[in-house]
Amino acid sequence: MEKIQFSSWVCPLPLRSYPTVVMGHGSGGKMMQDLIEHMFKPLFQSSVLDQMGDSAVVAIPTNGAGSTRLAFSTDSFVVNPLIFPGGNIGTLAVHGTVNDLAMSGAQPKFLSVGFILEEGLPMDTLGEIASSLAEACRDAGVEVVTGDTKVVNKGHGDGLYINTAGVGVIPSGVDISPQYAQPGDVILLSGTVGDHGMAIMSVRQGLSFETHILSDSAALHSLVACMLAVSPGIHCLRDATRGGLTAALNELALASQVGFEIEEQLVPVNPAVHSACEMLGLDPFYVANEGKLVAVLPAEVADEVLSAMRDHPLGRDAVQIGRVVADHPGVVLTKTSIGAMRVLDLPAGELLPRIC
Amino acid sequence: MEKIQFSSWVCPLPLRSYPTVVMGHGSGGKMMQDLIEHMFKPLFQSSVLDQMGDSAVVAIPTNGAGSTRLAFSTDSFVVNPLIFPGGNIGTLAVHGTVNDLAMSGAQPKFLSVGFILEEGLPMDTLGEIASSLAEACRDAGVEVVTGDTKVVNKGHGDGLYINTAGVGVIPSGVDISPQYAQPGDVILLSGTVGDHGMAIMSVRQGLSFETHILSDSAALHSLVACMLAVSPGIHCLRDATRGGLTAALNELALASQVGFEIEEQLVPVNPAVHSACEMLGLDPFYVANEGKLVAVLPAEVADEVLSAMRDHPLGRDAVQIGRVVADHPGVVLTKTSIGAMRVLDLPAGELLPRIC
Repeated sequence: MEKIQFSSWVCPLPLRSYPTVVMGHGSGGKMMQDLIEHMFKPLFQSSVLDQMGDSAVVAIPTNGAGSTRLAFSTDSFVVNPLIFPGGNIGTLAVHGTVNDLAMSGAQPKFLSVGFILEEGLPMDTLGEIASSLAEACRDAGVEVVTGDTKVVNKGHGDGLYINTAGVGVIPSGVDISPQYAQPGDVILLSGTVGDHGMAIMSVRQGLSFETHILSDSAALHSLVACMLAVSPGIHCLRDATRGGLTAALNELALASQVGFEIEEQLVPVNPAVHSACEMLGLDPFYVANEGKLVAVLPAEVADEVLSAMRDHPLGRDAVQIGRVVADHPGVVLTKTSIGAMRVLDLPAGELLPRIC
Repeated sequence: MEKIQFSSWVCPLPLRSYPTVVMGHGSGGKMMQDLIEHMFKPLFQSSVLDQMGDSAVVAIPTNGAGSTRLAFSTDSFVVNPLIFPGGNIGTLAVHGTVNDLAMSGAQPKFLSVGFILEEGLPMDTLGEIASSLAEACRDAGVEVVTGDTKVVNKGHGDGLYINTAGVGVIPSGVDISPQYAQPGDVILLSGTVGDHGMAIMSVRQGLSFETHILSDSAALHSLVACMLAVSPGIHCLRDATRGGLTAALNELALASQVGFEIEEQLVPVNPAVHSACEMLGLDPFYVANEGKLVAVLPAEVADEVLSAMRDHPLGRDAVQIGRVVADHPGVVLTKTSIGAMRVLDLPAGELLPRIC
């Protein structure tokens, strides 16, 4: 691929000078990154937090000698509407946290669930969502062991918000981190992109699509287990949630300080998602997924891992989309369908707010 | 104490038939208990959840033989106003979860923090609260290792909500559960009751007290460690948060299926809290605390543990307030200052909403 010069780039917007929180601070983009880099990281001063994995990896001392490595993660869910094609806020709250644990290679074990309920929420709606949440836990083999319920006054929530936190156990021999991508590695993607975000958009007030798009929301830990069974030496895993495929690729390239080069036409997009994105002027590479992962791993195991992924229902459409290079560290380049190169940059703010 | 007959009691209100969520479902009272008993427990079917400890106690398999016991807990914080005398939602979010872990005898280790921010929240306010949260973590010796930030539209939150989840390690030899109270045990209380709730009330819109009441919000794990150092055989610990001392006592009596008998005048109440409660027609026994615990333990170690508590800054006013009996299982009786007996029953709903 030809070289692009980055040295003369300047940021056109003073992103850090917002005096108040705006929707973009909850995106998967630069504004959220700024908030984390310039407020949370300096305040919390944690080497674990600084690693910016999808989940924290911590060592727990055991009664005997040695220690056990746990994955620990949290997500709050504020998706609007609460119920959407292919899932609801309850299933999403399970899949989101289970996937964050799985991206460390952990076997998810225990979940906490915190409900923030709005006064006036129909009890039937709460029942339906809690029931879906419980079913998603059973399907994923995780146990809700602790919880909390708060109620806020009518008009001060959106029906309900859910927070889940999760604890998983990392098998010995598995060592996955966003910082481990190396030049020469290949980049795999587990399937089509943009489905979740466009499923939500398809039912937002004022919009209606002719085609029926389902969210891809799913628990990815069994797919990850199949991949690790073939090759425990996977370097990085990332689920492509807020900010879509673009955010996942940029975060990994930045954390590892390597360049990523992908080929646009290799990335699978469902035709219905493609049409809906065109209609709304959105790029599916930036649209959230809730059941897709990016894996970075040594080239010599790529075929084997890809084949294992394709044997799994959640990895049927898995493909190699690119490779890791030593050039342009922290930058993701993509080769377009007409052969041109462009930078696949993080969005500044929020394309699709309240998507998860 | 004289006998009271309970067999003819009937519940005057059909608590379970609410078609929508009301503020009372977020209280520490019967309505929340109903929601947990009749919706969440049947759905989630977890023996750990069923134990209803302040935190879940789970066994994690270790690499070698055996396992390590972890405490895992979560709390969402929706306190209004965000900043109050003696703390803010950030310090509360640390103390609340640290205390839930401590009530299992665990040494708190790791926290997750999930922010739900309202569009328009001044960045300074977020900074102040995040900074307090970080400082409270340093003081408590816990590390924020993972987090999440979501933003909801203006008018749809209350500035910010915070969820924290925590993981702690339970030392071997420590086995504390709300189900372990036994007839003959004594009941200790670590200090004055009602301070947190009345501190919040003192700054709520439309109210102003002459006296300055500070929240008692504090991390109790070092107090618990001192108590366990004297006697690892403590049966139950409970922090007296939503629903106050009354809820803590009722929950333990119910879980252990024993009777509790306490003496009202032994319970310390700050004079300013007493006056404020009188003015508002509130009973300090029902008002939330965020830095007070109830301990149930064998009578033979009570003096030693009480003395250890009084040597700790957070247990200076610790007292023995009563004892556990075999009679009237699940019911808490209190002897009033004029010598009469009354049932200290759980409130139905919410006396002071949005207190934590």
